[in-house]
Amino acid sequence: MEEKSEQLHQNIAHLSDLLHSGQDEAFVTSFNALHDFEMGQVYSGLPEQLRAVAWRLLDNETLATVFDNIDVDDEDIDDLLQEMPPQKAVQILRNMYADNEVDLLQEMPTRLVATYLSLMPKDEAEDIRKLINYEEQTAGSLMSIEYLAVEADLRVDEVMRLVKQQALEAEAINYVYVLDKQERLVGVISLRDLLTHPDDMLVSEITKDRIISVKAGDDQQDVAQIVADYNFISIPVTDDNDRLLGVITVDDIVDVIDEEAVEDYSGLAAVNVSQTDDTAWHSAIKRIPWLIALLLLGMSTATLISSFDGLVRKASILAVFISLITGTAGNAGTQALALAVRRLAVGSNNSAVKNFLSEILAGFLVGTATGFSVFLIVTFWKHNYQLGLAVGIAMAIAIMVANLAGYLIPVLIDKLGMDPAVASGPFITTLSDLTSVLIYFNIAQLFISHFTGA
Amino acid sequence: MEEKSEQLHQNIAHLSDLLHSGQDEAFVTSFNALHDFEMGQVYSGLPEQLRAVAWRLLDNETLATVFDNIDVDDEDIDDLLQEMPPQKAVQILRNMYADNEVDLLQEMPTRLVATYLSLMPKDEAEDIRKLINYEEQTAGSLMSIEYLAVEADLRVDEVMRLVKQQALEAEAINYVYVLDKQERLVGVISLRDLLTHPDDMLVSEITKDRIISVKAGDDQQDVAQIVADYNFISIPVTDDNDRLLGVITVDDIVDVIDEEAVEDYSGLAAVNVSQTDDTAWHSAIKRIPWLIALLLLGMSTATLISSFDGLVRKASILAVFISLITGTAGNAGTQALALAVRRLAVGSNNSAVKNFLSEILAGFLVGTATGFSVFLIVTFWKHNYQLGLAVGIAMAIAIMVANLAGYLIPVLIDKLGMDPAVASGPFITTLSDLTSVLIYFNIAQLFISHFTGA
Repeated sequence: MEEKSEQLHQNIAHLSDLLHSGQDEAFVTSFNALHDFEMGQVYSGLPEQLRAVAWRLLDNETLATVFDNIDVDDEDIDDLLQEMPPQKAVQILRNMYADNEVDLLQEMPTRLVATYLSLMPKDEAEDIRKLINYEEQTAGSLMSIEYLAVEADLRVDEVMRLVKQQALEAEAINYVYVLDKQERLVGVISLRDLLTHPDDMLVSEITKDRIISVKAGDDQQDVAQIVADYNFISIPVTDDNDRLLGVITVDDIVDVIDEEAVEDYSGLAAVNVSQTDDTAWHSAIKRIPWLIALLLLGMSTATLISSFDGLVRKASILAVFISLITGTAGNAGTQALALAVRRLAVGSNNSAVKNFLSEILAGFLVGTATGFSVFLIVTFWKHNYQLGLAVGIAMAIAIMVANLAGYLIPVLIDKLGMDPAVASGPFITTLSDLTSVLIYFNIAQLFISHFTGA
Repeated sequence: MEEKSEQLHQNIAHLSDLLHSGQDEAFVTSFNALHDFEMGQVYSGLPEQLRAVAWRLLDNETLATVFDNIDVDDEDIDDLLQEMPPQKAVQILRNMYADNEVDLLQEMPTRLVATYLSLMPKDEAEDIRKLINYEEQTAGSLMSIEYLAVEADLRVDEVMRLVKQQALEAEAINYVYVLDKQERLVGVISLRDLLTHPDDMLVSEITKDRIISVKAGDDQQDVAQIVADYNFISIPVTDDNDRLLGVITVDDIVDVIDEEAVEDYSGLAAVNVSQTDDTAWHSAIKRIPWLIALLLLGMSTATLISSFDGLVRKASILAVFISLITGTAGNAGTQALALAVRRLAVGSNNSAVKNFLSEILAGFLVGTATGFSVFLIVTFWKHNYQLGLAVGIAMAIAIMVANLAGYLIPVLIDKLGMDPAVASGPFITTLSDLTSVLIYFNIAQLFISHFTGA
């Protein structure tokens, strides 16, 4: 990775030098030799005053490629566009792929978006406005509207001619979509089939009519799952009347899978891990609110223990096992949580009731095995099987409860229509601290006359 | 998801009926109308005695598509192949993409692999043997050897003719690779450029010579990062002398990203989440070893508390804050761990020393803020600022230590050449329980004469 960033710095330094020394043509040539992704990195890495020269030298298509390849989450991409007069910015926007254009506009102040749209041809502005209105994390928000579409009654060579004409515009050229008179999607032709069949064949013979498509409102995670399963390079998006609205390409799906994984992982850790090069200060600011919130939840456990002060005074040995029971139950809860979140993400072949019963049984098995282990350990360690019994039973029940909570909380969050990944591991462990202590002290109270010998 | 699986059951039932009622031709037609991915699902879903009919009816190419589309991790794919005589199995293997063929062979007993290879043409067997020898999780293990390659001095129409000839074999047709006489990769031509330039143009004019490629030994995670960044549909793999060995296609990269995300997530939760439809029994068996291992680690904390029994007897109030301090420090450690694992996965633009110092500082800020909060809470709750001070200071130091451990452990694991994702959240929290208790009781000992008023 450091290698990559060194290469980037070299590129930026080299291109800056060319601009500084007035070698405009050499700059344009060198810049155009970069890979698309590098163009984005280099452009946003140039000092502002050099960017002001650069965008005057580069053509609109190149600049569109630059902006197509800057991640809206990573950089202040909207600032980069605002460095130019609106007329220029609009030329660039119009040359971008619609999905990236929309992502970029969504980062901008509403007033500015209105200005840009007012400078576009009316029908184009209308298309963009529609795309902006799709909810985030839906298929509609991911799709581009630059696809290849034809009618059914053409020959291979005629379709190939259309493909050649439109290939520069289209974001994905691997599939050509067949539409009927009402713009409904009725078939898909693969470019591979077009290339390997005779020119005079009717494309209807190589058109697949069993189409896998998604609706504009579908969740991006479900779309990603389909593309991953079917090994698609792109997937068509339709409205409720099967009219083709756009296509989602696999590069956007790769981003979705990454984004969802980071979300799940962040949730489990109770810290947003999407930025890895934060300053210490920013990093701390991200972590502290979670820790303080969990601290306050943890205070309820402290209060509970405090209310059992009499019991602890009678048997100080009870203090020894607090962290063992809360810790182990917390670990069990985290496991159940992770399994539940993952199952919600990838889907399950079983009914909800079956999953629930299965989890109860798994929790029972896990709790019993672990409780029995701790019973043996404590009995032999403290030569006191009544104490071992109290700790073992408390451990078993605490694990079953934590396990159930770890399973139920993400399921309930999902039912409420939210992302179950927000249910974090630390939240579960802190919550299960409370239930574990409650179970532990109540059971200890039942057994205390036995194990203290009082 | 349930919808999808219902569709699958319908497909299986329908195709089974056709076989049962002897409608062989209808079966073949219906089966061939399925999407590639569905073929794999349906075939492995048929009852064994019907599969024995099915493979006799379907041609080798279709069967190769079936096996190309069954996930080796999900199903007993090797058993499916062993249902056929070796001669038939080899015909299918030879029609599969080499990367999938190798994945499949790697699931098989060595003796059987030798049999299959002995039934192939010598050069083909040699190619496959080479691929089998690449280490898992490297670029070499992901690549397929069916790519499009040409020499530099051809015209567009000549290359297009070669593309058309080879399009059925190649796994990815979006790029054509240009090789020199020594088979070294010297350029890449995109199919899009071939389609949009005149037939009589020399391809050297549309060949990109700034090639992004990977080496066969590169880690799959690094390859995935490059493909994701550059939005590639495939990436070439070369040996140390820049000779082209194969290509990796984006569908395999999607699987890698998913696999790595599941690994990271499983690590953080201390449970393998890759199977979501386990039975309760299997699910419990997966969780119990981790819980017992962590329980044993947790016993060291219990032993430590036990050694402070005298202190707890003097001030039972100390028991109240054990779970608060261990819990909060554990949460902080989990956050640091998650950030460190993620940073190792995506790479960092900063030096290791800078990251280390930054994490120390972040831990200091987090610890101070949280310690101060708990000082205020305890002081007001128990009207005892000395107690508040003891708990607050202990909390601050415990967090800093847990934070540092959470950061250092994955970094050290990475330095040892292992996947840092094995460092689990529960391991960190259980370990930090020990250090937190040690810090807490030592500090409490210093303060005890003050806050007990003794």
